[in-house]
Amino acid sequence: MAPAGQVTAAVLIIGNEILSGRTQDANLAWLAVELNKAGVQLREARVVPDIEAEIVAAVNALRARYDYVFTTGGIGPTHDDITADCVAKAFGQKLILHPEAERILRSRMAQMGVEVTEARLRMARTPEKAELVENPVSGAPGFRVENVFVMAGIPRIMQAMFTSARQYLRGGVTILSRTVGCPLPEGVIADGLTAVQDAFPDVDIGSYPHYVGGKPGTNLVARGPDPLRLDEATVRIKALIVELGGVPTEVVD
Amino acid sequence: MAPAGQVTAAVLIIGNEILSGRTQDANLAWLAVELNKAGVQLREARVVPDIEAEIVAAVNALRARYDYVFTTGGIGPTHDDITADCVAKAFGQKLILHPEAERILRSRMAQMGVEVTEARLRMARTPEKAELVENPVSGAPGFRVENVFVMAGIPRIMQAMFTSARQYLRGGVTILSRTVGCPLPEGVIADGLTAVQDAFPDVDIGSYPHYVGGKPGTNLVARGPDPLRLDEATVRIKALIVELGGVPTEVVD
Repeated sequence: MAPAGQVTAAVLIIGNEILSGRTQDANLAWLAVELNKAGVQLREARVVPDIEAEIVAAVNALRARYDYVFTTGGIGPTHDDITADCVAKAFGQKLILHPEAERILRSRMAQMGVEVTEARLRMARTPEKAELVENPVSGAPGFRVENVFVMAGIPRIMQAMFTSARQYLRGGVTILSRTVGCPLPEGVIADGLTAVQDAFPDVDIGSYPHYVGGKPGTNLVARGPDPLRLDEATVRIKALIVELGGVPTEVVD
Repeated sequence: MAPAGQVTAAVLIIGNEILSGRTQDANLAWLAVELNKAGVQLREARVVPDIEAEIVAAVNALRARYDYVFTTGGIGPTHDDITADCVAKAFGQKLILHPEAERILRSRMAQMGVEVTEARLRMARTPEKAELVENPVSGAPGFRVENVFVMAGIPRIMQAMFTSARQYLRGGVTILSRTVGCPLPEGVIADGLTAVQDAFPDVDIGSYPHYVGGKPGTNLVARGPDPLRLDEATVRIKALIVELGGVPTEVVD
């Protein structure tokens, strides 16, 4: 499915709060950029509610299709945190109190002088064959089962967990990009741009219109693994803009 | 699948720029809130790249499962705008130059004094049985085929198109919510909250931790169609917070 040399991933965002519009997801764009730095291309994202059957089905669909799956959300201590249960079910594994996770949580609770409760120990539950993913921010770890990484939904904690998880990732090519801005609307540049795309089948050329102060403009983005080819495509795009009477501008990605 | 009286929807976000992390999606949260106002519950969202097979598969999977599907992105004039082609393929319909859309575009181009080009007319292409969805912002319309609404990705235009599309929606119940804040961490409140959830099976109780200035706190959200039941659940949640030594605060949703 993916082009040769590409390692792929999907993100599964778990949480009613995203689907109700109460919370704006802040993890997807961050993960997309960091995954690419690790040589992994984000190819799909899904948002599902806190419903067991939905989460299990999405985990199984995505882990079969992509090299890696990253879930966010649903691993706290409350009744609506059911991600660990669902991932265990997706893999047909028993849900256990992970001994090392329990040790981490008990030691942290002792340190903070808070009571060990059943709810707090919920955060030590993992599928039986899980490896922990360290959480240097608040202790309670994420975990990995095969190619599925289970992380928190709170961005600061998710980011720390992803950094811990990077050691497990086998990356492929990193996709680079070059962006050229111009004051032309998309309709003016579209035909010429198709010709550039046809001449560079190994480069993905995207066109993103914008309106700044009521004035239309377009950002043209060339993406691909080979910096030389991106430079060549960028030269052609700039020449096209000039030919159409525009002035190309450099946009820092 | 959905509880009785609920009308459901999915959002399909089409675009490499979201999956590369270049652009932060700004449509999902807005659509979630507006759909609920129309009595439609957003139950799933997917983000897929500008690849025909991926878009066709996602449209077909989602339109079979939900009452409505709303796509965003990929309906401009450039070569990477392939949503109309994909939706036609998903429905097994021919892609046509929609006569009314063509008339709208030609009249707008004449008004603006710009040349009629093949690229600009691309935006009049729809599946043969599509009905247009008006775009009062920039002219080029969205469209509807059966239960699938195809809209622009630019938030201002998407919002205008959604407003035009609302006439087609048959809504069910609207889900209401009440939020109570407290300065307690989730671990303290979790066990008591499970008891409240058990007592209110018809109310969805969510728990959302936050850290403000390094201090933990939790927002407790009761969601459901019946305002009386939400008020009852909220009273119980406030009592629980007080019992645990906290002071509940009203949070405006």
